[in-house]
Parts: sequence; C-alpha cells; structure tokens
Amino acid sequence: MHTVQVETPGGHYPIHIGAGRLDAVAHSIPADATAIAVVTNTTVGALYGARLRAALEATGKPLLTIELPDGEQYKTWESLDRIFDALLEAALDRKAVLVALGGGVVGDVCGFAAACYMRGIRFVQVPTTLLAQVDSSVGGKTAINHPRGKNMIGAFYQPQAVEIDPGVLATLPAREISAGLAEVVKYGMIADPAFFDWCEAHVDALRALDGEAIRHAVRRSCELKAWVVSQDERESGLRAILNFGHTFAHAIESGLGYGQWLHGEAVGCGMVMAAELSARVCGLEAGAVERIRALVQAIGCPTLPPGLGAGRWLDLMRVDKKNEGRHIRYVLLPALGRAEVRAVDDEIVRPLLPDVPQA
Amino acid sequence: MHTVQVETPGGHYPIHIGAGRLDAVAHSIPADATAIAVVTNTTVGALYGARLRAALEATGKPLLTIELPDGEQYKTWESLDRIFDALLEAALDRKAVLVALGGGVVGDVCGFAAACYMRGIRFVQVPTTLLAQVDSSVGGKTAINHPRGKNMIGAFYQPQAVEIDPGVLATLPAREISAGLAEVVKYGMIADPAFFDWCEAHVDALRALDGEAIRHAVRRSCELKAWVVSQDERESGLRAILNFGHTFAHAIESGLGYGQWLHGEAVGCGMVMAAELSARVCGLEAGAVERIRALVQAIGCPTLPPGLGAGRWLDLMRVDKKNEGRHIRYVLLPALGRAEVRAVDDEIVRPLLPDVPQA
Repeated sequence: MHTVQVETPGGHYPIHIGAGRLDAVAHSIPADATAIAVVTNTTVGALYGARLRAALEATGKPLLTIELPDGEQYKTWESLDRIFDALLEAALDRKAVLVALGGGVVGDVCGFAAACYMRGIRFVQVPTTLLAQVDSSVGGKTAINHPRGKNMIGAFYQPQAVEIDPGVLATLPAREISAGLAEVVKYGMIADPAFFDWCEAHVDALRALDGEAIRHAVRRSCELKAWVVSQDERESGLRAILNFGHTFAHAIESGLGYGQWLHGEAVGCGMVMAAELSARVCGLEAGAVERIRALVQAIGCPTLPPGLGAGRWLDLMRVDKKNEGRHIRYVLLPALGRAEVRAVDDEIVRPLLPDVPQA
Repeated sequence: MHTVQVETPGGHYPIHIGAGRLDAVAHSIPADATAIAVVTNTTVGALYGARLRAALEATGKPLLTIELPDGEQYKTWESLDRIFDALLEAALDRKAVLVALGGGVVGDVCGFAAACYMRGIRFVQVPTTLLAQVDSSVGGKTAINHPRGKNMIGAFYQPQAVEIDPGVLATLPAREISAGLAEVVKYGMIADPAFFDWCEAHVDALRALDGEAIRHAVRRSCELKAWVVSQDERESGLRAILNFGHTFAHAIESGLGYGQWLHGEAVGCGMVMAAELSARVCGLEAGAVERIRALVQAIGCPTLPPGLGAGRWLDLMRVDKKNEGRHIRYVLLPALGRAEVRAVDDEIVRPLLPDVPQA
C-alpha cells in the first residue's frame, strides 16, 4: 500500500492506494462513529456494495445503504435530498459517517451531503472509477449541478480518508478508462513534463489496465493533486490550473446536456482546445499542441469539439466559476508542464468554436 | 457605534451596533467585490430595501435585489434555489457579495446560499429583527429546514461583518419583540446571572423599545454569543449551551408546523420546560424555576407547552442535532447563569410533555 498525505486548512487526511483497500475501509472509520451510511449508485452498488458492507460490518456499527440512480444527470438537488431523507429517517446523528462508494458523481453528491447534513458530518471517499481515483475524490471539492451550470452549488469539504483500490477498475467500461486517463495526462501537461513523457510511453499499458502502470499513474496523479490542493484549498490561485481544459469541457457538457459526453471525454477535447488557444495567446509551440492532441487521441478521447455555435459556446463558458466580472478566464500552457490562468478576449477564442452543424 | 469582535477558525469579523448602521453598510463591502446581491423578504424589502440600496449605491458596484416570501415556512430548498437562479441568471461570479437584509430566516437562507454558491462567496448580515440582532446573525450558523426537522441542512459559514441598526426595530410587531427578548434573557440564564437580574429590572423598557435599554441588551447578547462562538465555532462542546430551551422549542415548531409559533416564542416556552427538567435532574432551585417562568411571561412569550402527546414530543426531539445515538440530550441549568448538556431518560421527561387536547 502507498500513502499520499493531503494537508489543507480544512483537514489533514491520507489517501491509501493499494490492491484490496476496498476490504480495509473499516480502518478509516473513526472509532466514535455512531453509524455508517454507504452512498453508492445502482451500478456500483451491485458490483461492490456487498463486499464493502461485509468489510464495514467489522466495525460493529449500524450500517445503512443509500443507492442513487447512475449518471451525471442525477448530480442534482433531488439526489442530495434523497440522502438527507434516508439519514433523517434513520435518525442518524452528527457522529454518523458517510462512505462514498462510486465515481465522481457519487463522491461529489455524498461529499456535499456530508458537508450540509446537520451542518457537517464526516465522510470517507472510496472512488471506483479511474477519474474519481485520480481527481475528484481528492481535494475536497463537492457539488451538485444546477440547470444553469455544472458544479455551481457545493462546498470545499475534506474527507476523513480516501481509500483507492485499483482492482475495482477491472469492471469499468473502456470508455470510462479513457475518460479517467484524460485527467491523468492533464497532470503531466500542467505540472510534470516527465510524467507527460511517461504517459505517452505507457498509453497501451494504461488502457489495458496493466497493474503496475495503473498504480504508478494513480499514485503520481494523487501526489500532484495533493501538492496543488495543499497549497490552495479554496482555489484562490494555484488550484485553478487543475481546471486545464475544463472551461471548454463544462460548456460541452452543459451544451450537449449532462451525461452525453463523459466528463473526462469533454476534458480531453477541452485540453486540445486549450492547447490551441495557448498557441495563439501565450506561445505554446506547435509541436507541443500536436503531442497533446495525439495523446488525447491515443487515450481514446474525442479531439474534435461539438458544434454548438460560437455565441452559445461563449455564453456557456461565461458561467464558469473561474471568471471575474464579464471576462472569461482560461487555464493556458506557455509550455508543456507549466500552466497559468488568464482572461482572453472573446474574439480570439471565437475561431476555435465550431458552428452548429447544418441540417 | 459599538463594535464586538468575533474570532473563529472560520473567520474574524466585526459586529457593528449603532443607530444609522443601515446607511453605513457600504463600509462592510470588500473593495474587490464585483457585484452586490441584497437578499430580503417582501415585508422587510418594502420597509428598508430602498434605503439599503441607496446606501450601497455609494460603492458604484452592480446591485441586484432578491425578494423571498416572508415566513419560516419559506426556509426551504425552494427559496435557496430562487437565490441561486437569480445569481446565475445575472452571471454573478465568486467575488460577488451577498447582503442579508431581514430576520433569522433571511439570514439563514442567504448565509447558506453564500456558503454553497460556487462553493462559497462572501456575505454581510444586516439583521432587522431583535431575534436576528441578538442571536441568529452572529456566529455563522446557516441552514434551511427539512420536512423532517428544523435547520437540518446547512453550514457553519461566517459573514464578513454584521451591521446592527437598532432603529429598524421600530417597525417590528410587538410579538416579534417578545420573541427576540426570549433569546436575550436566555444569555442571562445560561451565562450571566447579573444580566438576568438586569433583564428582570428592565422588562418594560425593553418591550417599549427604549433606546438605551435595547442597545445594552443587544450589545451584551452579542458579547456573550461572540464569546461562546469564538471558543467553539462548530458546536463540539460549549456552543451547545446556546440551545437552552431549543430541544423543546424545535419540537413545538415542527409539531405545530413551522410558522405557527415564532421561533423565539417556542424558545421562551422551551426554556420554562428546560428549567422544570433542570429542577428534576440537576438541582435547579424552585425559586429559580419560578423566576425563569415569570420572566418569560413578562417578556410576553407563552409558558404553557402545546399538547402534542408525549410520544410525538419525544419523536420530534429525537431528531435534534445535539443527540448522539438514541439518547435525547438537553441543555440544563444546575443554577441560574450556569448551563450543561446531558442525556435524560425519556421516562423522566415524559411527565412534562402535555397530551393531545381532547375534542
């Protein structure tokens, strides 16, 4: 097992990475917990719910399971309220602990429920998708979507621990592996050129879920994320670089309707767009843009943006949380492995935004 | 003007108390704010909205007003979502600032909206009821109600500043003054016997809104609350004593339906019940119980609990946030001016809980 430590003002906690961690989650339940509620979705619950419950029964504490429907379109107030309802019906108190068993949606909704229930109870992340293992389960960002924008309602709220078992990725559809790899290669692009090189050299092993390659990718991703988050928990500066590609990605997801493209797929495409924009406004070399495009393609993510029409693209990007005033701010790369945030005039971005396809 | 400072891990901020503070709120808006959204209700908005907006126009910042319906029954997700909708429609960013102009409901809903919008933006409290001025605007508790329990969903989230203008109390109905005085006298009961004596001696002046008496009551209440909150922001210990009378009060509000009794009225009655329970389990003298009953009556709050039936009373109190496991925990007074939290067996409490009235 490998441990990465996260140190933020909102909490210090370990990320445990290793085969079999799913069976060891009981170690992360605080001794004074009065009850445990596992929050999962119907898909993951069917695959790993019984195994996790068996592991948690070792604590001897009352155990409740709450299953949400599966999909980004359920990252809503309704799902949140379903959790609150179940917790209140079971009369769980402030010393109850939630366990998020699932991907980014489950982790975000369960984490936000923990942040709000009785003004805050403890929770543990048990991410089961590659995307959640390398990104969303680490760093304490929790949220639900609003019809007007993704992740608009949420909290910075740190878990007690993150338990990562790469073994559970075996049941993940190939498309979700590709989506998760988008966030993995992102860390190389924004902060670690050597890791970018390594990803280029190990694409096939990663897509085939080779154990050693996946463990290294998860570990390095968690280290880089923990390093960024420990310096800037509440995204007042550095942390924004983790949103490389995300301004475009959020517009894709919101513009096509949540759940059409996977979040990681939209991020893959968004990173290609952001690389092209970087070439235009801060000097990213053409060769680097092509390497980014080739790697996104190699991991199996789309590289061609959908036609939403430039006006709609810009409107959708304008509700991004990074913005200040009316200017859209983008994470850009002056070079591979180095990121910065800057506002870019709409007219410079417009040529990158495809029109609505003609019927 | 008098200033009381609140120092918590979640934020340091001033409470300004003084005539005319409503016209000085612009001083509490941070210079880098990109926009201001005033959240109020239809009643308070009609009385003081224009005056506050005029004062805020001095900042030169874009100004938005969001009016909620008036009443505890609107302390819901729907009101919260109405705020999110308005903020997103106006494309307000993370550097926007909310201003809560109203009583406890507006302050709690607006504060919780600030805690969640884009994972947290800044806000300023401008309380306009006595209850909000002496209690709910100070200390960072924000929440909405859930059909299964009061204030069950929320956050600890501190404002940038609290601006208290006792002048606005002039338009408050007498019933709301009485409700606010319940929280004022509470501070004497739990922490300051001399202040309890002072309240007994100044009941008539307080109910008549005598300027000097009200200023002293607001100031001493804020000082005592700031002292408690600064030691225990997240209610892991000491802060629970502020809930004296509230276990019973929440059951009254929830059992009769939110909005039937005012929160402060329920607290008044709940303090009499808690005093009686204190006499039975921790030796509060009969004379002190009678002084508490007499003072609650003198400020104009009910002292006789409604008949909900003992079983229902206990069920309603069991969802209280102070509880751990299945035991109901009460704030009790071993003596006037001293409070402690302890679990009490249902059978000891039952005789205090009136039956359902016979038809």
